[in-house]
Amino acid sequence: MTKIRVAVVGYGNIGKSVIEAVDAAPDFELVGLVRRSAIMSEEEAKELYGIKVVDDIKKLDDVQVAILCAPTRVVPDMAKEILAMGIHTVDSYDIHGGIWDLKQALNPVAVKNKAVSIISAGWDPGSDSVIRALLEAIAPKGITYTNFGPGMSMGHSVAVKAIQGVKKGLSMTIPLGTGIHRRMVYVEIEDGVDFKKVEENIKADDYFAKDETHVFQVENVDNLQDMGHGVKMVRKGVSGKTQNQLFEFDMRINNPALTAQMLVACARAATRIQPGAYTMIEVPVIEMLYGEKEDLIKRLV
Amino acid sequence: MTKIRVAVVGYGNIGKSVIEAVDAAPDFELVGLVRRSAIMSEEEAKELYGIKVVDDIKKLDDVQVAILCAPTRVVPDMAKEILAMGIHTVDSYDIHGGIWDLKQALNPVAVKNKAVSIISAGWDPGSDSVIRALLEAIAPKGITYTNFGPGMSMGHSVAVKAIQGVKKGLSMTIPLGTGIHRRMVYVEIEDGVDFKKVEENIKADDYFAKDETHVFQVENVDNLQDMGHGVKMVRKGVSGKTQNQLFEFDMRINNPALTAQMLVACARAATRIQPGAYTMIEVPVIEMLYGEKEDLIKRLV
Repeated sequence: MTKIRVAVVGYGNIGKSVIEAVDAAPDFELVGLVRRSAIMSEEEAKELYGIKVVDDIKKLDDVQVAILCAPTRVVPDMAKEILAMGIHTVDSYDIHGGIWDLKQALNPVAVKNKAVSIISAGWDPGSDSVIRALLEAIAPKGITYTNFGPGMSMGHSVAVKAIQGVKKGLSMTIPLGTGIHRRMVYVEIEDGVDFKKVEENIKADDYFAKDETHVFQVENVDNLQDMGHGVKMVRKGVSGKTQNQLFEFDMRINNPALTAQMLVACARAATRIQPGAYTMIEVPVIEMLYGEKEDLIKRLV
Repeated sequence: MTKIRVAVVGYGNIGKSVIEAVDAAPDFELVGLVRRSAIMSEEEAKELYGIKVVDDIKKLDDVQVAILCAPTRVVPDMAKEILAMGIHTVDSYDIHGGIWDLKQALNPVAVKNKAVSIISAGWDPGSDSVIRALLEAIAPKGITYTNFGPGMSMGHSVAVKAIQGVKKGLSMTIPLGTGIHRRMVYVEIEDGVDFKKVEENIKADDYFAKDETHVFQVENVDNLQDMGHGVKMVRKGVSGKTQNQLFEFDMRINNPALTAQMLVACARAATRIQPGAYTMIEVPVIEMLYGEKEDLIKRLV
């Protein structure tokens, strides 16, 4: 079997998990890891033993797919640049309001370079989106509530860290039902900084302004960290003219591991579908799966 | 907006619900209902007021999609015949072991006649299949249990009715967890028939032989009928190298209404994808939804 030659771009939580997921997938071969700097700490050198680490994807040979594990805000430019080399890209761009624009921006570049870009591939946006779409297909009228957590929000935690005076921050998402969430924020602050001021700035931040938010000063944020997360989606809707159709999807998962696995599944799909930029709801689920169609259909349908 | 011109073939529980779902869908136009006989009872004439009823699909003009609501065993020949006219077909063929063969049989006919056939479109096989496939994409190693019920199994009830001496029969599916089910069977029997013999024959039938089955003789089966059904799918699996990823999908639904809605959603998809025969896991979910891609992506992803 010819394996899919994949490069991982970025080595944060997601990048680390993607390397594991690539290693666990029978049909993938890791060509290398791309980082801003190829210089590693001793711990990293141990983790990355046997893996080619470079500071530019051009230094890797015959990459078919690049899995972008960089911060969301750098994804659009990075994806464009890599697609222009004729390399498929997969990302977990997670700003819901920007997804359509990203698709519009990447689609012509992908088509022109005969490449595929699957964007916003994670769990939300991502697998949750597929389930939301499916629930709307089977009960077109009604309301879907997506309840996140309890779990750490990576996006919100990054937003906390960006507040002046915060050394380390952690934002936990607590589901209150019907899509309403409480934010529990834990911060280590710099010496001499007024906690009240930090608290105010966090609560005023766009990421928090709309939600009930509680901020706590703690000695050690690291001790509170747990990568577990969850979601409960609830829909009550109408199929045809029949009311009260009830649906629930519930998951309790390790967040970076799930995102990483979804990225790898979409990297597989990217090698099988027509050039262009896609969100996950535009990709047939079977294309994300390892194996022969005959076996998959016999086993899963 | 040009509406999708659809014919409904068959007028059992599913056919009735499909007519409702077509009526509720903003982008469909019911061209007519095809039945073995166009002669109606007074009650049917009332239900079908304003709907063109014919005994042959050739008597309907410009049908784009035919939704096959006939018994599973007649679906393969019926689909072939209608595809040969260049009309897309959608069915809810529900014998899991025969789905791959049906796809293989219909695909060349569909391709040759530039038509699309979406097979086994219901909830299981159907929307459950999409979720099973998605769960395998996000946690490739592990076990998925599909637990049905409590609810009436249409297939099993038909099998009961086929047993000699049974006037009316109802088989309820009771989930015992980990994909194990109990069958609770209620029968009205013909005068002079030995209930013990009927019970024995039901328990020996292929539909029941593998499951714990209890058979009860009742005065009136109709009084026990309720079209509610449900499913709980449970997966515990591995994403990358991370164990114990937990997923549950749960629904409580009106069975024919859900099947019908899925058929209508797939009839829509059939008008948008390339010729060929597909199971639902091969169709992008977005193609099943009414509306513009931009709106759907902005709202659901």
